[in-house]
Amino acid sequence: MPDTIIPELPVFADITTAAERLKGRAIRTPLLESPLLNERMGRRILVKPECLQRTGSFKFRGASNKILALGDSVKAGGVVAYSSGNHAQGVAAAAHYAGIPALIVMPSDAPAIKRANTAAWGAEIQLYDRFTEDRTALAQSIANERGAAIVPPYDDPLIISGQGTIGIEIAEQLDALNVTPCAVVVPCGGGGLLSGTALALSKLCPELPIYSAEPADFNDTARSLASGNRESVSPDARSICDALLTPTPGIITFALNQALLSGGLAVSDAEVLAAMRTAFLDLKLVVEPGGVVALASILSGKLPPGDEPVVAVLSGGNVDPEVFQGALKS
Amino acid sequence: MPDTIIPELPVFADITTAAERLKGRAIRTPLLESPLLNERMGRRILVKPECLQRTGSFKFRGASNKILALGDSVKAGGVVAYSSGNHAQGVAAAAHYAGIPALIVMPSDAPAIKRANTAAWGAEIQLYDRFTEDRTALAQSIANERGAAIVPPYDDPLIISGQGTIGIEIAEQLDALNVTPCAVVVPCGGGGLLSGTALALSKLCPELPIYSAEPADFNDTARSLASGNRESVSPDARSICDALLTPTPGIITFALNQALLSGGLAVSDAEVLAAMRTAFLDLKLVVEPGGVVALASILSGKLPPGDEPVVAVLSGGNVDPEVFQGALKS
Repeated sequence: MPDTIIPELPVFADITTAAERLKGRAIRTPLLESPLLNERMGRRILVKPECLQRTGSFKFRGASNKILALGDSVKAGGVVAYSSGNHAQGVAAAAHYAGIPALIVMPSDAPAIKRANTAAWGAEIQLYDRFTEDRTALAQSIANERGAAIVPPYDDPLIISGQGTIGIEIAEQLDALNVTPCAVVVPCGGGGLLSGTALALSKLCPELPIYSAEPADFNDTARSLASGNRESVSPDARSICDALLTPTPGIITFALNQALLSGGLAVSDAEVLAAMRTAFLDLKLVVEPGGVVALASILSGKLPPGDEPVVAVLSGGNVDPEVFQGALKS
Repeated sequence: MPDTIIPELPVFADITTAAERLKGRAIRTPLLESPLLNERMGRRILVKPECLQRTGSFKFRGASNKILALGDSVKAGGVVAYSSGNHAQGVAAAAHYAGIPALIVMPSDAPAIKRANTAAWGAEIQLYDRFTEDRTALAQSIANERGAAIVPPYDDPLIISGQGTIGIEIAEQLDALNVTPCAVVVPCGGGGLLSGTALALSKLCPELPIYSAEPADFNDTARSLASGNRESVSPDARSICDALLTPTPGIITFALNQALLSGGLAVSDAEVLAAMRTAFLDLKLVVEPGGVVALASILSGKLPPGDEPVVAVLSGGNVDPEVFQGALKS
């Protein structure tokens, strides 16, 4: 599909509708900070810990918004999704609460905790090889067989609007704290969380710069923002950030991000591990590699320096104990 | 001092006064749960994560309440406290915000993270040997020299009232969730957090049973509740729960706990490590050994079985990476 054909873009009202749908279903995560970390870094770093969200990541918001909006039409066939693990759990949990069946196509190298929890929510799991198989085609063929609805991971107005409820909460929480930050940094895989958050904040805090944060080898959004075209990562790219291994920006998400973002940051795996350790020591939060890239970008100086407050979204906390132990040793 | 001479006991109004003092200073920690953990355990387990409190433990509440109440009288000489580490950080931070000097007497085997953070808050540290020296006498002599005020760790009406603000928050949060639990379980060292929380809940949720949770070898409160006298632990007692190594209940705290508690639970170090791992996997929270004993009591079946909701206070998250790695391997 050429970049010039862009499907319907979500608007701010879609996010307020999503916020109404999610009320009492999704957790309103707090905005936290560590005074000692702030002092060391010379600025306030406020974090939005979506690791404390239901299913351990922000993905529950978008999946719930999508499934609740689909309503009765999906009751019979259920839903099908493809995901490295966080969207899998989000869809599995949202389907569980909606009382409909879910099948998730997951890569065979997904973290054990993500597979186990997806199964625990009652979803059926079908594995595929991340490097040789086309998960989208596989999911679509299963959905066709079953008469199921696809719940896409990011490139969908309802998914983006659900994730965007984080932006509304950040704006309200900054207002309650009477803090005006100089930037909000958001982890970016396919860009659903990022574009939704940016859309909400563009309305509520129009002067506030938003940055993407990505793994260094998966900096497709940063490069796409620079070039103005949807760039792809190398097929040889690898990262410990299993949640962010998306090869190219989404069509809808990039259209929004191109219009709304101030720039793209990228961090190494070593910087990710160091930030996980900081989150452990100073914030008492368990954050997974892909969930910590925004904080890592700030801690490692990728954001322009300054003493003004910044906000980092911590997008998830589903990390296997072995990987976390590695971060603690870093 | 014989048990029959009991100094002034705090009352519920002292806790509401403390809540007013702490407004905007202490974090109102959320009440969290893991749906998958609930399903595995057959009941809702709601946790109050004071690991997310300023300084990584509940101790900031009591220390702030005490120092704010002392007011101008302590400005010159500052404050002195003795603590294994969480009260140390709480006092150091509260003194920092009040703009007064603090000296903390800490055991030489306190966790590195607790010493480092106490120093980072600007407090002076004096080490002592936990097994041969009398920390109370040492602190008192330093306080006398300096004309400083002592901020006791637990056996003090203002400290107890500050910690008791947790009870008010739990009652309000249960009400907002429309949940009626069958028990609240609270970690117990000297009993300040426990007695304050019990005092608040005895007023706001008068039918709600409150239990103490302690390390198995430091079950002095459980035994004291059973015997009706303040019992002491063996001098040979050891536990990984560094925050809870108090040899005997406080006088004020036990007077309250004896009147308000339904019973005392105790857990082994292995049960503590397993609960830390569960908090990591299911709640995405970093909880220290002493902070997790209430959750450990529930997970290991020490609380009478049932399917009704329970609440566990997670009292702190200041744990060295090496100890946490051990829990992840358990």
